[in-house]
Order: sequence, then C-alpha cells, then structure tokens
Amino acid sequence: MSGRIKCFAYTAALIAVCITSSVHAADDPLPSWNDGPAKQAILDFIKATTDSSSPNFVAPEKRVATFDQDGTLWVEHPMYTQVLYCLDHVPAVVAQRPELKDKEPFKTVLSGDREAIAKLSIKDLEMILVATLTGMPVDTFEAEAKKWIDAAIDPRWKRPYTELTYQPMQEALHYLRDNGYKTYIVTGGGQDFVRVYSDETYGIPSEQVVGTAGGTTYGYDHYGKPFLTKDPKLLLNDNNAGKPEGIHLMIGRRPYAAFGNSTGDRQMLEYTKAGDGARLAMLVLHDDANREYAYGPAQGLPNTKVGTFTQELYDEAKKDGWLVISMKNDRKRIFADAPD
Amino acid sequence: MSGRIKCFAYTAALIAVCITSSVHAADDPLPSWNDGPAKQAILDFIKATTDSSSPNFVAPEKRVATFDQDGTLWVEHPMYTQVLYCLDHVPAVVAQRPELKDKEPFKTVLSGDREAIAKLSIKDLEMILVATLTGMPVDTFEAEAKKWIDAAIDPRWKRPYTELTYQPMQEALHYLRDNGYKTYIVTGGGQDFVRVYSDETYGIPSEQVVGTAGGTTYGYDHYGKPFLTKDPKLLLNDNNAGKPEGIHLMIGRRPYAAFGNSTGDRQMLEYTKAGDGARLAMLVLHDDANREYAYGPAQGLPNTKVGTFTQELYDEAKKDGWLVISMKNDRKRIFADAPD
Repeated sequence: MSGRIKCFAYTAALIAVCITSSVHAADDPLPSWNDGPAKQAILDFIKATTDSSSPNFVAPEKRVATFDQDGTLWVEHPMYTQVLYCLDHVPAVVAQRPELKDKEPFKTVLSGDREAIAKLSIKDLEMILVATLTGMPVDTFEAEAKKWIDAAIDPRWKRPYTELTYQPMQEALHYLRDNGYKTYIVTGGGQDFVRVYSDETYGIPSEQVVGTAGGTTYGYDHYGKPFLTKDPKLLLNDNNAGKPEGIHLMIGRRPYAAFGNSTGDRQMLEYTKAGDGARLAMLVLHDDANREYAYGPAQGLPNTKVGTFTQELYDEAKKDGWLVISMKNDRKRIFADAPD
Repeated sequence: MSGRIKCFAYTAALIAVCITSSVHAADDPLPSWNDGPAKQAILDFIKATTDSSSPNFVAPEKRVATFDQDGTLWVEHPMYTQVLYCLDHVPAVVAQRPELKDKEPFKTVLSGDREAIAKLSIKDLEMILVATLTGMPVDTFEAEAKKWIDAAIDPRWKRPYTELTYQPMQEALHYLRDNGYKTYIVTGGGQDFVRVYSDETYGIPSEQVVGTAGGTTYGYDHYGKPFLTKDPKLLLNDNNAGKPEGIHLMIGRRPYAAFGNSTGDRQMLEYTKAGDGARLAMLVLHDDANREYAYGPAQGLPNTKVGTFTQELYDEAKKDGWLVISMKNDRKRIFADAPD
C-alpha cells in the first residue's frame, strides 16, 4: 500500500467514524421539530438506511432525497416568489419592447392596480412568465434574477424571501446530507430561477436543482463569442407526473426520500414509495395561520390556488404510509431567527 | 468546538493534506501519457485552477469537467456500441411486435446479411433506434441493456466493450476528480444507455451523464404501482449545439475543461473556452491504425461517418488554443491491460 493510498484509507476510516458518531450523537439533529411521528419517521429512516447492519441499508452512492421548494422549503403564500419576480420585471421588459406597453396583460401590470393584477387569468400569467423568463441570454437572466432576489422584501415579515425558508426543513436537509444523502430540489418553479439562489440558500448546487425548464439556443455574439439564449419552448413541466419524469431525466435514480406539500407532489411521492426497502414520503400541511399560513382544502382548511392540498391527497397519504407534517404541531419554530 | 465538529475538521485537514500531497507527489498522475504538450496542458491546468495562490484558482464547487464518450473515452469504430446493441436487440422487439417481421429495415436486420445491414440509411437506423430504445418501462430497458453490455464482446479485441476505454483518459478522469473536479459524460449517445454502465466503467454516476434523451411517461400497472415508460419524443439531441444546451439544462454551469474527438464536440469546446480564467479544451485525433483506428478526414486521415474530425475543426483547435491529442504520439498505451 503506497503512502498516498494509506493516507486515503485512513481518512476514509475517519470519515466513517465521524458519520457513525454523528448518527448516535447525543445532540439532536432536528432541534426545530417537536417530538412526534414526523420527526421520529425521519430519525427511523436515517437509521434504517445508513446502519450497515440494517436489512434496508442503502449504499452511499444511491442515497437520493428530493424536496419540492415552494411551500415545502420556503413560503409560497400569498403568491409564488417567482411570479412576484416576473410581475416586478414587466417594466424592464416593456422598456426593451415598447410595443407591449398598451397590450394586455402588460398594461394591467404596469398600472400597478393590485386588485386588477390579482384577477389576471392563468393564461395572462403565462404570457407574463414567457415575456420575463425567456428571450434573453442565460447570463443576463441570471444577473437580473440575482439582483432582484438580493433586494426583494416580503411585505408581511419584512425580510428577504431567501430568509423565509423553514428552519425544520433546513435541518432535515443538513441531517440527510450529513448521512450521505445527495439532496435535490424538484420544483414546479423555473429551474434557472431557483438555481440563482439554491446554493447560498439551501447548500444545493445548480446541478441538483430539477425544475420546470425551457430549452436554450446556442449562438454567437458580434465578436464570435458563443452564448445561450433562453427559449420559450417548454422542455420539462416539472409538476405532477412531470416530477418523476424530471427525476428520471436529471438524476436517473429513484429517490429514497421525498418531501412535498401539494397535489403537484403526489406522483413524486408515489414514485418514491413504490421503491423497495425503506422509503420516506412526507407532506407539509399548512395549518398555522398565526405563525405562517393556513390552506388546504384538506382537513377543512381554506381553499387556495397556490399550493393546493386536497383531502384526496391527505387520504392517500394516510392510506399509503406517507407522513403529514403539521406546521402547527410538528414544528417548534418556523424560520431561522432574523439576523441581528 | 464540539467533538463531532473537531472530528470533521481533523478529517477535512487530512483530506487537504492527502490532496495536496497527491498533486505534488513524485508519482506521475498520468503514467499512460507520453511527455509532451497534451500531458503538460492537463498538468498546467490543474495547477492553475487548484493552487489557491493562482490568479486562475477555481472554487471547488465550480470545478466541472465534461467528456464526450464515443471516441473520447472508449472505442467508437467501426460502429457506435449503442447501435450494435440496437441491432442485436431487433429480434427481441420483433418477438414482441410480430408485425415488424416483414417490414424494412427490420427484415434486413433479421436476415443477418452484414453487407446489407452496413448499407442501411440514417433514416433506417433511426427507426431501429426508436423501436429498440423506446416503448418499454425504464426498468425493463435498463435490465436488458445491462445484460447485453455484460455479455457483448468486441470482435477485434475479443474483450467486453467496457474494457475498451482509453487508459490515458481514465487517468485524466481520476486526476481531475482527485483535484476536486466533478466529471461528467456529455454524449451524443443515449443518456439511459450510457447510465447503465457509466458508474462501473468510469466511476461516473447516472446523475453526471448528460446524453441524448427522450421523454418518459408516468403511469400505473395493474396493481396500481407507478412506473415510467420511455417515449419516442426527443427532449435533447445532445450533439453539436445540443451539447452546451444540454450542459446548461443538466448542470447549469460552464465547464472548465472539456474533452471531445469529433465535430459533434465543437460547440461544447467553444463554450468551455469562452469562459474566463484557465479553460482546457482537448480533442482526441485517431491517428493510430495499428493500436486502434485511424480516421479524420483531418490531417489526411481516412474519412468516416462515425466520429468525423474535419480539417476545419483541426484548424479551429490550433487557432483557438485547444489541444489535439494524437493517439499515436501522446499515448504510451491505449487500453488497460486485459485482466488475467
């Protein structure tokens, strides 16, 4: 054995010791979770899949965990953050394309009339998304989205959107990674949009973000330098059945754990649970209007178009052994403390 | 500092020592490369991008290197391995769909007439690819492709195709990974096909294989168990401009190093070199008929339809500071020794 190989072997052994001791550590890896079935399910899952004597042990290279973003990792009410970006970005697009100024739905957005904007149809919103998310070089989009996300403030909490991630889910991400899991975001939101902040916000690099994605077109600028332009052509609608389809395209393995919060996550959770051995499927139920929001319509909660959680989904979860995480009962706290 | 954190810090320091010593080790990280500009370019690139005092230092999380597969990492002549799989798989498809038996091009393939098969048009081959690569559950495809690749033998070398990877490129993959680079395959071949053997053959997991990809469709079997079916719909044609487009879709970052061998890799190399700092772009020229194959038509080598390397590409490489790797002059050996 060469000195270098010996050194690596020693390091590998030390890593193994560290990981093992982290599992059995006295300190709680999920301090923002109340004791109960949801927290226990995560602890049991990690024990079952990482203890080498367990019949459900999973080899480290196969450990994949997927998380929906909006409503699962961070706040999605009253409106998806990406849609707020698109609405805010309409003036910049109109400055580039003045012919849109007097056309709907751009005219309504420019009017600033909040009531009228709230009434825009899905078709109107799609037109706004296409106009603000496509047609520009990928580098330009990235720079503009980054500038916005660094400055935008949520009106209820007066904090940046990137601080409105759920502390219990951040702990779950870390706990899974500390135990060898590769953590992925699998979102109905735009892949390129989420990639702008995923690394800084969740420790998830761009290549581990699977989202709704359009194509790009390769071309050259006046100096012959190549660049990619964002196309309006949809490649992957990463919602509903599109989630397992996107997981196959981008990851190529079935997850062992999946977290969601709405009907758009149903197929991802079904697909995850259909694998053999120990599989973890969890759904966040927003039932805490005081500390966050309350919406369903499952369990008699108010209905919503943003992050719908139907009673049918709730019943499927209970029937198939998925865990429902109650925002109200399972979470000791919702957000990380605001920085001083 | 808690005991656990201390343990991790100690391990991290040890890893750093190991990596540093591996870079400065007296033992050659590229023993199958002859000394010369190609080998030196790789050594210089690693030094420039991983030495923290270098002006071109690249943060570890940004270190991405992409490799074409056919003709770059393994043998592609006289025909792409995947096409051989598809031709071999025609009888199994016809057994499932007897109506194809008397239809062209399936009839010709079933005849076993090698001369007639060699004359099949691109359109014929596309029909065969669609029939043998789509329409089945992804798990079924994976099992069948794995069975084939484990058993198939190259007629010239009498060895499995997975042993016909280039030893110098295997060393380059390891050397890059030892220095914190994430290595990706970016292939015109089928993403799902390459994923079947990429981990075992190259140490590259499925999520780091970007290839030509069709969609899948989510559905349920008779027991209500979900599964994915491979669609004939093309999502990504990962050739030419499709390579940088695929890299953006699947990785979301520009590579720092890219390796190819044909005109299908041109845009990937241009895109890589267009980034700032130190970027490495390399092209394998197959100019060694004795030890492997010789084809171009660059540099007066015989023309080919499989892995075309035009003189125009050769000239662009020379002009733009890409390195051309001569199979004949830059490689001490071609393959790993056959196992005993």
